[in-house]
Amino acid sequence: MAQNIYDTPDFFTAYSQLRRSVHGLDGAPEWPAIRAVLPPLRAARVVDLGCGFGWFARWAAAAGAASVLGLDLSDNMLARARQETAGTAVRYAKADLEHLDLPASSFDLAYSSLTFHYVEDFGRLVRTVFQALRTDGHFVFTIEHPIYMAPTHPGWRLDEAGRRTWPVDRYAIEGVRTTDWLAKGVVKHHRTIGTTLNTLIGAGFTIRHVEEWRPTDEQLAALPALKEELERPMILLVSCRR
Amino acid sequence: MAQNIYDTPDFFTAYSQLRRSVHGLDGAPEWPAIRAVLPPLRAARVVDLGCGFGWFARWAAAAGAASVLGLDLSDNMLARARQETAGTAVRYAKADLEHLDLPASSFDLAYSSLTFHYVEDFGRLVRTVFQALRTDGHFVFTIEHPIYMAPTHPGWRLDEAGRRTWPVDRYAIEGVRTTDWLAKGVVKHHRTIGTTLNTLIGAGFTIRHVEEWRPTDEQLAALPALKEELERPMILLVSCRR
Repeated sequence: MAQNIYDTPDFFTAYSQLRRSVHGLDGAPEWPAIRAVLPPLRAARVVDLGCGFGWFARWAAAAGAASVLGLDLSDNMLARARQETAGTAVRYAKADLEHLDLPASSFDLAYSSLTFHYVEDFGRLVRTVFQALRTDGHFVFTIEHPIYMAPTHPGWRLDEAGRRTWPVDRYAIEGVRTTDWLAKGVVKHHRTIGTTLNTLIGAGFTIRHVEEWRPTDEQLAALPALKEELERPMILLVSCRR
Repeated sequence: MAQNIYDTPDFFTAYSQLRRSVHGLDGAPEWPAIRAVLPPLRAARVVDLGCGFGWFARWAAAAGAASVLGLDLSDNMLARARQETAGTAVRYAKADLEHLDLPASSFDLAYSSLTFHYVEDFGRLVRTVFQALRTDGHFVFTIEHPIYMAPTHPGWRLDEAGRRTWPVDRYAIEGVRTTDWLAKGVVKHHRTIGTTLNTLIGAGFTIRHVEEWRPTDEQLAALPALKEELERPMILLVSCRR
């Protein structure tokens, strides 16, 4: 079973206070980039892998989706998602993405935000998603960028000239990375961009868009703290199609 | 016109002494990975963009290619390539990849090794290659990996624990990078992986394989100096199809 860090009290409390937890999709600066590659949602059947508080599920329902299935491993997240969701288009269920089963040809869009780096067996997951999509169905997801995830000691350094740099090492050595983010001992699974894309291609997907997210000039003007995102990418956005 | 650094005497002399210049394809550790994604060459019409000394062109001819067109900007490289090539399957010509023209539907494989990072207008080049390939034709190339190319000061640093790290900065800021490699003031054009892949997809290509090259365990045993390639990727290999 995947580590269920979101149900440890310290992590959940800290996570709940993040900008993206309080403000939802509009609190996530990569959201406009994601939205730009989403297919039209009217009448679509959507599954959200790692739905968290249900922000995307509710947005998709409001955008006209016929049904949205939000899956998460965390009881805390699911309880809060259910509490904040009205209407009948959205349904939530507990699921461990390491052992996910989904009915065949049942969805028009599979979506996931910043979740798959917690999954060890990405190949199994991708094959499961592929068979769960209808032909031409869309698969859109973000993960932590491998530049962000690979290092032994992720974090800024100052070079001789006082410039911020991000010290990459172990990029080619895939596997577990344990970091202290919001709580101690968070387990993530580092994969190169090559492995991520080749796994999708190998399962039968066609790659449509690959974006190493960076803030727009407008976002930089509004939120200057985002400037460091120009130095190294934190998020990888992938859009592909069955 | 692209910078023609290969025709400056210092650079050419130093380049000629590199392992890959002396030993050809077998002196390039990424060659087995490239070879693994090449289509069968028997009877194929091949164009090599940035052919250098013609190692690949001669290999392709020996592998049964019907014709190989080797293109390069450097008179020095072309002179040496011609001098070392016998037979009639291979032809060389001078070309600036910034302004390349190729006849439509004329090639089964377009190949390029470590050249496109010298090209500013990658979009124009990709569209030119696309129309020059027959339907289902292959496009296989390597470029310097953007992790390698992006930094203001590319080079190893030692962290507090004495570990080698590669200081990434300016990853999201695409454009010119001037470095001193073999000669002073070598101009390269940094692009993210996302931009490279989206440019190919936008031109109509289907991405088949993306590899951030790393040495195999056998290569590491035979040549321990390659171990640093595990810390950060130097080469990006892309295979796609019209």
